[in-house]
Amino acid sequence: MPWYQLDSPYDPKLEELAKQYNLHPLHLEDARSEEESVKVDSGARYTFAVLKPVYLKTDPDAPTEKMPTFSTIDLFAGKDFLITIVDPTCPSTDAALERARREGADDHPARLLYLILDTIVDRYFSAIDHYDDRIDQLEDAVFDSPTPEILGQIFAIKRELIDLRRVLVNTRDACLHLQRDPNSIIDPEHQLYIRDTYDHVVRLLDSVETQRDLLNNTLDIYLTSVSNRTNEVMKVLTVLGTIALPAIAISGIYGMNLKGLPFEESPHGALFVGFATITCTALLLFVLRRMKWL
Amino acid sequence: MPWYQLDSPYDPKLEELAKQYNLHPLHLEDARSEEESVKVDSGARYTFAVLKPVYLKTDPDAPTEKMPTFSTIDLFAGKDFLITIVDPTCPSTDAALERARREGADDHPARLLYLILDTIVDRYFSAIDHYDDRIDQLEDAVFDSPTPEILGQIFAIKRELIDLRRVLVNTRDACLHLQRDPNSIIDPEHQLYIRDTYDHVVRLLDSVETQRDLLNNTLDIYLTSVSNRTNEVMKVLTVLGTIALPAIAISGIYGMNLKGLPFEESPHGALFVGFATITCTALLLFVLRRMKWL
Amino acid sequence: MPWYQLDSPYDPKLEELAKQYNLHPLHLEDARSEEESVKVDSGARYTFAVLKPVYLKTDPDAPTEKMPTFSTIDLFAGKDFLITIVDPTCPSTDAALERARREGADDHPARLLYLILDTIVDRYFSAIDHYDDRIDQLEDAVFDSPTPEILGQIFAIKRELIDLRRVLVNTRDACLHLQRDPNSIIDPEHQLYIRDTYDHVVRLLDSVETQRDLLNNTLDIYLTSVSNRTNEVMKVLTVLGTIALPAIAISGIYGMNLKGLPFEESPHGALFVGFATITCTALLLFVLRRMKWL
Amino acid sequence: MPWYQLDSPYDPKLEELAKQYNLHPLHLEDARSEEESVKVDSGARYTFAVLKPVYLKTDPDAPTEKMPTFSTIDLFAGKDFLITIVDPTCPSTDAALERARREGADDHPARLLYLILDTIVDRYFSAIDHYDDRIDQLEDAVFDSPTPEILGQIFAIKRELIDLRRVLVNTRDACLHLQRDPNSIIDPEHQLYIRDTYDHVVRLLDSVETQRDLLNNTLDIYLTSVSNRTNEVMKVLTVLGTIALPAIAISGIYGMNLKGLPFEESPHGALFVGFATITCTALLLFVLRRMKWL
Amino acid sequence: MPWYQLDSPYDPKLEELAKQYNLHPLHLEDARSEEESVKVDSGARYTFAVLKPVYLKTDPDAPTEKMPTFSTIDLFAGKDFLITIVDPTCPSTDAALERARREGADDHPARLLYLILDTIVDRYFSAIDHYDDRIDQLEDAVFDSPTPEILGQIFAIKRELIDLRRVLVNTRDACLHLQRDPNSIIDPEHQLYIRDTYDHVVRLLDSVETQRDLLNNTLDIYLTSVSNRTNEVMKVLTVLGTIALPAIAISGIYGMNLKGLPFEESPHGALFVGFATITCTALLLFVLRRMKWL
Repeated sequence: MPWYQLDSPYDPKLEELAKQYNLHPLHLEDARSEEESVKVDSGARYTFAVLKPVYLKTDPDAPTEKMPTFSTIDLFAGKDFLITIVDPTCPSTDAALERARREGADDHPARLLYLILDTIVDRYFSAIDHYDDRIDQLEDAVFDSPTPEILGQIFAIKRELIDLRRVLVNTRDACLHLQRDPNSIIDPEHQLYIRDTYDHVVRLLDSVETQRDLLNNTLDIYLTSVSNRTNEVMKVLTVLGTIALPAIAISGIYGMNLKGLPFEESPHGALFVGFATITCTALLLFVLRRMKWL
Repeated sequence: MPWYQLDSPYDPKLEELAKQYNLHPLHLEDARSEEESVKVDSGARYTFAVLKPVYLKTDPDAPTEKMPTFSTIDLFAGKDFLITIVDPTCPSTDAALERARREGADDHPARLLYLILDTIVDRYFSAIDHYDDRIDQLEDAVFDSPTPEILGQIFAIKRELIDLRRVLVNTRDACLHLQRDPNSIIDPEHQLYIRDTYDHVVRLLDSVETQRDLLNNTLDIYLTSVSNRTNEVMKVLTVLGTIALPAIAISGIYGMNLKGLPFEESPHGALFVGFATITCTALLLFVLRRMKWL
Repeated sequence: MPWYQLDSPYDPKLEELAKQYNLHPLHLEDARSEEESVKVDSGARYTFAVLKPVYLKTDPDAPTEKMPTFSTIDLFAGKDFLITIVDPTCPSTDAALERARREGADDHPARLLYLILDTIVDRYFSAIDHYDDRIDQLEDAVFDSPTPEILGQIFAIKRELIDLRRVLVNTRDACLHLQRDPNSIIDPEHQLYIRDTYDHVVRLLDSVETQRDLLNNTLDIYLTSVSNRTNEVMKVLTVLGTIALPAIAISGIYGMNLKGLPFEESPHGALFVGFATITCTALLLFVLRRMKWL
Repeated sequence: MPWYQLDSPYDPKLEELAKQYNLHPLHLEDARSEEESVKVDSGARYTFAVLKPVYLKTDPDAPTEKMPTFSTIDLFAGKDFLITIVDPTCPSTDAALERARREGADDHPARLLYLILDTIVDRYFSAIDHYDDRIDQLEDAVFDSPTPEILGQIFAIKRELIDLRRVLVNTRDACLHLQRDPNSIIDPEHQLYIRDTYDHVVRLLDSVETQRDLLNNTLDIYLTSVSNRTNEVMKVLTVLGTIALPAIAISGIYGMNLKGLPFEESPHGALFVGFATITCTALLLFVLRRMKWL
Repeated sequence: MPWYQLDSPYDPKLEELAKQYNLHPLHLEDARSEEESVKVDSGARYTFAVLKPVYLKTDPDAPTEKMPTFSTIDLFAGKDFLITIVDPTCPSTDAALERARREGADDHPARLLYLILDTIVDRYFSAIDHYDDRIDQLEDAVFDSPTPEILGQIFAIKRELIDLRRVLVNTRDACLHLQRDPNSIIDPEHQLYIRDTYDHVVRLLDSVETQRDLLNNTLDIYLTSVSNRTNEVMKVLTVLGTIALPAIAISGIYGMNLKGLPFEESPHGALFVGFATITCTALLLFVLRRMKWL
């Protein structure tokens, strides 16, 4: 059985194959579109699939950080042929094709399609692990010191999870389609395998939902931490004001050019007044704390 | 096959056509309504469709900005006739009719209807791109400086996305209706094409949901930025208060008309007291920072 | 065909009709209940319907304001009779009965029921327009000056929309029931008309959802405006503190009864010290602005 | 037909009846469980039902307040017997049994079961009215003066509504089950009656949802009121600061032991300086108000 | 009937059994996976189940606290054999196996599977009770004194409930599968028992939802408490400012080196001025309270 592997949907070879195997123009258009999303479409002669393998790529903004990135595989799987259009630089695509060649070479296309799909889905788990680690780090960090940088990272992961979720939802629907569509290339023998892959995708989606919940928790922690700190700062300010108040008021009173103030003429006036000030301050702090205002 | 093209639902020609082709009074009423929404209704003799092409119009409030705007197309597609009522000033309508004429002129109305619908749906992608750009700009802006103007823009886009979403949901339901209703003008040959258009609308709706999520993120960033800034301002105020406190208290004390204060008679009193003040301030700041209150 | 019109469910005539036409006791109980909600119930002999026409009533608290208010119509529509129990003071009910008499007098009860239902649903659009206007006004007002009165109005409209939504959801279910229940009085000829009314109710519900979204936006704007203003007031307070700080500290220092302060004996001391104070203030403001703290 | 009425599921009589009528051990276990929830389970020989009548009980914490409380009824309704296990202290249970005895004594168990269920559901309306009153009071109170006590009451009602909603959802499912399960004791004649009860439960659930919405509104009002008050307090603080600033700065300046201050030697110096201070203050307040900062 | 009990999925015995009973490689892979979730999969020859018993384990961070922890049981239940792979250190697993041996030893595998599943589900109730207690404690604590530690505990429980909910949702689906899948080992006699277990799981899930609602309430209480306290602190600060203001302003005025101040030369000047200051302060506090600003 021939397996044609192309590196680009603009390869002129694709036009020849399209004529030979009667590929539908809408599928060719999809393969060439920039913004194609994961899908499976089964016709009478073949099953067309778009898959999105994920791989960890070094983040150009932070060279020590890895970042989940998507590439694209287009598959045309007929009863007696297989055409794959892949991005040759993606290591997950490499792994999928390599496993398909090793475990399924002598087999029919249904097995090849399953092997490629299953490897791609397996790789999503590493993306989920990556986010688990990052969310754990953020949660620890946000309790210690809520900074705007952490906030930026929370929203960045939220954005990335939106994308990942979209890919997973479409992959889940694609697995469902492969199981249920009577035209699908997947034969009864491989139904159970596809169902297993489907279960994995459902579990992945479940994890993404959990991670979104956790991120929202982290955001709530951030917000309450900021509120708490504002509250703390307010209290410090109030304590400072409370300490200052008697000193300022009493020293102001004794600074007046008036007559008749007690201790005015006493040689130890400063001592007496100083003592009175300290007593006032202590009393004020005690009252505020007693009334649970501080 | 005759194709009647009218520029207004009040054209007297429409009354004649209504009699000739037995158009239902409820459909005429819909075509003339100001607030009609996207819908498809199939009867025994023809399919009636209301579509809402989108186009980018210069915003009257900000001449350098473009703003997605909707116009209306009403279609009566029978087996042997087509009536279109369009807004002649809308460029997307123009493009749709022009493509229908070019690619479908010799064809039956099902193909014409598909071509018009598909062109209109394609144009929605440019509206989505427009919002993607604006949301990206807002997200950058909100991290730098959260101003009420940005807030106003976030809520304006939210409002526009509510409208866009409503049009897309109705268009999705219309595509579904065209595929499933046995009375629909769409024949089996064009089912696959309409399904492709349906997939596009679903992807568009998915993008709108993502954009609403992103806008909510942006709003959260705004709110946390404001909280953060309030917190920052509070800290500045507290630092200022902390710096001022010893100076004010000590200078107040030495301003009192009392006897018995140390260094009162010393010729370098100001120096000693100044030094004491600075030491107190430094100590206070150090304690506050040590206690993680600032 | 007899059409009995009663003004109250306690009219003794109703008891007679109940015996004559075999009305179910549960339906009589519903008609007499204070809290009946919109519903349709079809039995073998007749269709029972409770409808809630809306009309704009002068608000007793604010005589210049109109307020959407609901009244009740109970209908018993059999194959050869029609009983209506209405509130005679409601103008929407009047309009519905008048149109039914004009357009449907010689007709069978299905047409009468449709005409009454359709007129009632048409009147809901004016309630929606009323809320559109009020929400627009609130949105403008909340950007200019967020006051507790506006907040009160936002929550009042939210409460009214909850009621309107409940009536519309029940009306939608009633329309569905009239289309699908094989016992329903509505014959195939009027199915299309009821479906048109159903479409109108769905669009109305869609508008209510949009208005709830818009109200939530308005509430978010209110909350962020209050946060923003708190932030602004904090900044003003901090600027005042910053301006006062050097003046207070320096004047405090020169108010001390100590020796050794510079310029103490200079005849232009006040000038020099004043100049120093202004310089300190300017420097402090410059530093704070530079550090983006203000 | 025998009707056995027990006051406790631990009554030894129940064991005898279980043997005589072949009651399922799982149903006995349910009847004896502390945490049983509303359910209906129909077997070949009888229908088992757990119901939760509600009654208003004096709140032990606040003797003037009534509080909705649930008791439990277990029913075994066979074709030729009825067993009820009730809490004899609950007035709603009393009312339900009394009505069943009065209106259904000579009847078959389906009617008895309906009468008991209908009376119990009718009593839920009084619980809903109770919450309507309390929510109205809270809404008025929260606008006037948002105190932590009101907050505590809002969350207490939220918690009670969660419980009520759970009972109502289970009662709704029980009604559905009684209508649809072919094994159910309810015969076609009573289907319409159960459907009427089902409609009442659906309306009750609708009211609970509305009340939860209203409570969330009240909570939002509380939060915005607190924000508003913080804002108000901040403004008062800022106005006080603004009024104090010129007095403190100018009096500080004239308190300095320096030469060269204007009016220093004038006999009406205090008057001139006092006038200057008041002018500064007025100017400052005017500028702040003009800039919309206060 | 043989019952093989293994302590580890890596036991070489499992390989032998896999060959003997034709176990599917995907099930073996699942049993060996680290992250397997609760599931049931029925083939022609046997039913494969993964269950997650819960037990209370001493929290290593807080030795006086218990913490719900999950272990894993893998079951292969054929018509004439049972294989269980369990964690021997889990007390809930012990209890489940012990009860199966006691009540079901002579029975067929369907009963054993039911007994194990039912015991495991019963144990979840103790986890729910554990959370009920902790949430009650937190709710009381948060009203008294909202501290960041309480916040940390709220979010920790939220995280644990997310995990528990996931296990319960999967267990519910597994129960459904056991009832409905025609391949399932569960025979009609045990359907009712499994339905009873299913009802328990649904009630548990209901409790988890209620607890999540209650935790969100607790979080809201926390946030409003912090807002309230900020508000309180602000008021204290403002009262302090109000008390200080006249003292500082008037003492500043009398500290000026100017002539023409009233009482300047009076021997009881201090008395008069002190009295004026106290009057001003009282008046100011009275006005602020009257205007409802404090």
